[in-house]
Amino acid sequence: MTQREAYARLVEIDRQIVLIDHMEATLYWDQEISLSPLGLEERSVQLGYLAQLRHDLASSPEMGEVLAHLEGLNDASDVELGLIRIRRREYEKMRKLPVLLVRSISEQGARAHNSWVAARKAGDWSLFSGDLSSMVTLVREKATLLKQEGGCLYDGLLQEFEEGIRTDQVAQLFSEIKEPLISLVDRFSSKTVDSSFLYGSYPIEQQQMFANEVLKAMQFDFQRGSCAVSVHPFTTTIGSDDIRITTRYTDPSVMDSFSSTVHEGGHALYEMGASNAALKGTSLAVGASLGMHESQSRLWENMIAKSPEFWHFYYPRFKALFPVQTAGISEDQFVIAINKVERTPIRVNADEVSYSLHVMLRFNLEQMIINGEVSINEVPEAWNAEHRSLLGFTPASIKEGVLQDVHWSSGDFGYFPTYALGNLYGAQIWKKVKEDLPVSSLLQSGNLGTISDYLKTSIYERGAINTGLETLEKVTNRGLDASLFTSYLEDKFSRLFG
Amino acid sequence: MTQREAYARLVEIDRQIVLIDHMEATLYWDQEISLSPLGLEERSVQLGYLAQLRHDLASSPEMGEVLAHLEGLNDASDVELGLIRIRRREYEKMRKLPVLLVRSISEQGARAHNSWVAARKAGDWSLFSGDLSSMVTLVREKATLLKQEGGCLYDGLLQEFEEGIRTDQVAQLFSEIKEPLISLVDRFSSKTVDSSFLYGSYPIEQQQMFANEVLKAMQFDFQRGSCAVSVHPFTTTIGSDDIRITTRYTDPSVMDSFSSTVHEGGHALYEMGASNAALKGTSLAVGASLGMHESQSRLWENMIAKSPEFWHFYYPRFKALFPVQTAGISEDQFVIAINKVERTPIRVNADEVSYSLHVMLRFNLEQMIINGEVSINEVPEAWNAEHRSLLGFTPASIKEGVLQDVHWSSGDFGYFPTYALGNLYGAQIWKKVKEDLPVSSLLQSGNLGTISDYLKTSIYERGAINTGLETLEKVTNRGLDASLFTSYLEDKFSRLFG
Repeated sequence: MTQREAYARLVEIDRQIVLIDHMEATLYWDQEISLSPLGLEERSVQLGYLAQLRHDLASSPEMGEVLAHLEGLNDASDVELGLIRIRRREYEKMRKLPVLLVRSISEQGARAHNSWVAARKAGDWSLFSGDLSSMVTLVREKATLLKQEGGCLYDGLLQEFEEGIRTDQVAQLFSEIKEPLISLVDRFSSKTVDSSFLYGSYPIEQQQMFANEVLKAMQFDFQRGSCAVSVHPFTTTIGSDDIRITTRYTDPSVMDSFSSTVHEGGHALYEMGASNAALKGTSLAVGASLGMHESQSRLWENMIAKSPEFWHFYYPRFKALFPVQTAGISEDQFVIAINKVERTPIRVNADEVSYSLHVMLRFNLEQMIINGEVSINEVPEAWNAEHRSLLGFTPASIKEGVLQDVHWSSGDFGYFPTYALGNLYGAQIWKKVKEDLPVSSLLQSGNLGTISDYLKTSIYERGAINTGLETLEKVTNRGLDASLFTSYLEDKFSRLFG
Repeated sequence: MTQREAYARLVEIDRQIVLIDHMEATLYWDQEISLSPLGLEERSVQLGYLAQLRHDLASSPEMGEVLAHLEGLNDASDVELGLIRIRRREYEKMRKLPVLLVRSISEQGARAHNSWVAARKAGDWSLFSGDLSSMVTLVREKATLLKQEGGCLYDGLLQEFEEGIRTDQVAQLFSEIKEPLISLVDRFSSKTVDSSFLYGSYPIEQQQMFANEVLKAMQFDFQRGSCAVSVHPFTTTIGSDDIRITTRYTDPSVMDSFSSTVHEGGHALYEMGASNAALKGTSLAVGASLGMHESQSRLWENMIAKSPEFWHFYYPRFKALFPVQTAGISEDQFVIAINKVERTPIRVNADEVSYSLHVMLRFNLEQMIINGEVSINEVPEAWNAEHRSLLGFTPASIKEGVLQDVHWSSGDFGYFPTYALGNLYGAQIWKKVKEDLPVSSLLQSGNLGTISDYLKTSIYERGAINTGLETLEKVTNRGLDASLFTSYLEDKFSRLFG
């Protein structure tokens, strides 16, 4: 087998894996949107069957042989190197993790999910702590197997979600923004802002019309995707040419639904751009990393769709659709209201300034849990202590505290930091966009297409050829600089609130 | 390998095949309900991938070996014999049909579908005839490979859809009902019936409320299925505990949507009953045959939900939901209107009396086409000639004639007869139900559950243990008697129209 032949075979197997990924996404989509109450058990069996098929392809002896042939491949393009990197990474990971452990985590996840739901409902940690404890034992085993020479236990988990980033790097970045964020929250949460009109009755049909107009302006391609309604908003790639988002209309504020649509729209633009002629159907036709993905969803959600310039164009349209609900509310009042800074206990509804503090809390706690520095029984109090230190108050109840997020029940330790990394990546990219494009006037004239095109060419179309951090460095010509995020916030919120 | 071991292995492989069937059904469902316009190409590749997986399992050397071990299995139950029969039948079929031929038919089907759409739009046969001709060549090749000793060419196609029934048997059954049906149409289509109020404006939300009330009374289990909206109504088994139906609200008459929901509801009850503790997850957990399936959908649609007794209970509820639309229309007028007999060109909207004549037309023509007794160019005129002979008039246009049905474009020759067989099975079963249950008073009191339970125990729960014809004979203790269908019609319509 020549290296060329080996690469061709790698591409063939990879295409099958992607096909299975997309079928799996379709089954999950159907589970969220249409599955009957009693259909869940068999759906799990179907998903297990596909997971096995996928595992067999990605970690087969043939894959090992092909990858061995591709060691030190000469004359390779970016795309080729990217694909080899991804397939090697997954091959090695799968060889390290026994199938039995993977299955145990998945099964324990189903159990722990149920006890998390029960504990949250009852506000009783003890209903969850046993299953969480079993899960942590399994996750620690996984972390040990994934741990690399010289790294720490948490590294193995973190790098599942953000390739090539070390725990100490994240800790350093977070420590740089911690004090500035706390002081920004202090400063801006003291302002009195009336946002009550956002909680009025906004008919869903008009909300959809408005959101669709913005999605179209963002260049969301309705020939290659759609927007549906689900309990929790998400984005999924059902096929190279079928990228779907969902939203919900049950949140109390009209801005929650809209923000959520734009957020998922940002994820979808990335996926649509990554599935281009060069990458389509391969494992490279996705976002570079979770953090990079989140940078784009949050860039569209916050930096664009919560900016005064955006609303300078869109507020008259919004007002025309909701004349009664916005009666007497000026453009300035509206923009101030949607950017209100507040100390609140719930991460998902947090404002742009305090959001990352919620993530830092979880990052700190996850390390303590994985390293065994805190027992599972002590976690709620440790949560509250971190919460007081970062957000300045104790959550009123455990439901608003440690039981608010679902992630730990499924064993997803290492996932949370990518949310805050996304904010950092996003701010650095946004600065670069503003250097290269007349963003302010584009937004004021409703021209989102030019910004979308820029991001498509410079980021989306590169897919996963590079890691998230490498992609950031290629796009902005510099390493990650956390201070850009806090200076972005300082600038924006000073202009808004003085 | 002992016979017990062989059977256990057969069950294991069969469960995998069923899992793939259900995943395939999910992908098709998604295609009908949510797929983006550009997502179709990759979806075809996904479906092809699953078809290949399924083919490999069902026709593997291991399957051959297992089946050989099971030859002449002693002490076998009904269920075991049924499963062996089904797996052997499919194994032999797949060994007979080259994969290349199956793929060619599928690919030619995609082409022919497009040209059928174009031809229908333009009303121009020549746009379709070339692709149909190629399809017929492929189908004839398939029929030749499937043809059994002593059978005719059409047998091989017919038995794809209705196991164990010969063409000459169907021809004999149809010849017995032909003249009686023509004379019934003559007699009842002469009556003047006002059905214009059925074409008024009926809000969809109320239509759904009414249909759901009836589905619940039929014992459609909403924990194990749902009802959605699609372009063409259908029923699909997404999983053993997830059986879904669709309907549409674009038909001109309110009865079209309701009939369609009840029709698909009948199919769904059969599937729900077949997925019971004993058969769930195996290939036996489906209807016995297409004809038997259609008998149940049409039994619920026509014999139950178009009977005067049914509406004696439901018309007051219908009237309460649609007071304006039904103002001044008595129960008798309503029942007469929904049972109007009319010479119309379109099969899918045909009344209960003339429907089977439309099927006979296609059955006659399909044989002529497969046997080469008519050239593809001559088909439209042959259609019109048959149409005159059976329905007494020439369709006004080719769109209302030979181009009305999609089936031939996908190569589904042999499928149509099962629609009329369903009517025959249904009438014979309905007679038996009426012998065993006080049907008239059950319907008049809205007690559909007792009828549903009866059908569940006697038919649905047997699944595909036996063929359609065998199931009929077990349930009614007699062979198929076509005259029961015409005497059912004679009786019902005489009572309605005198």
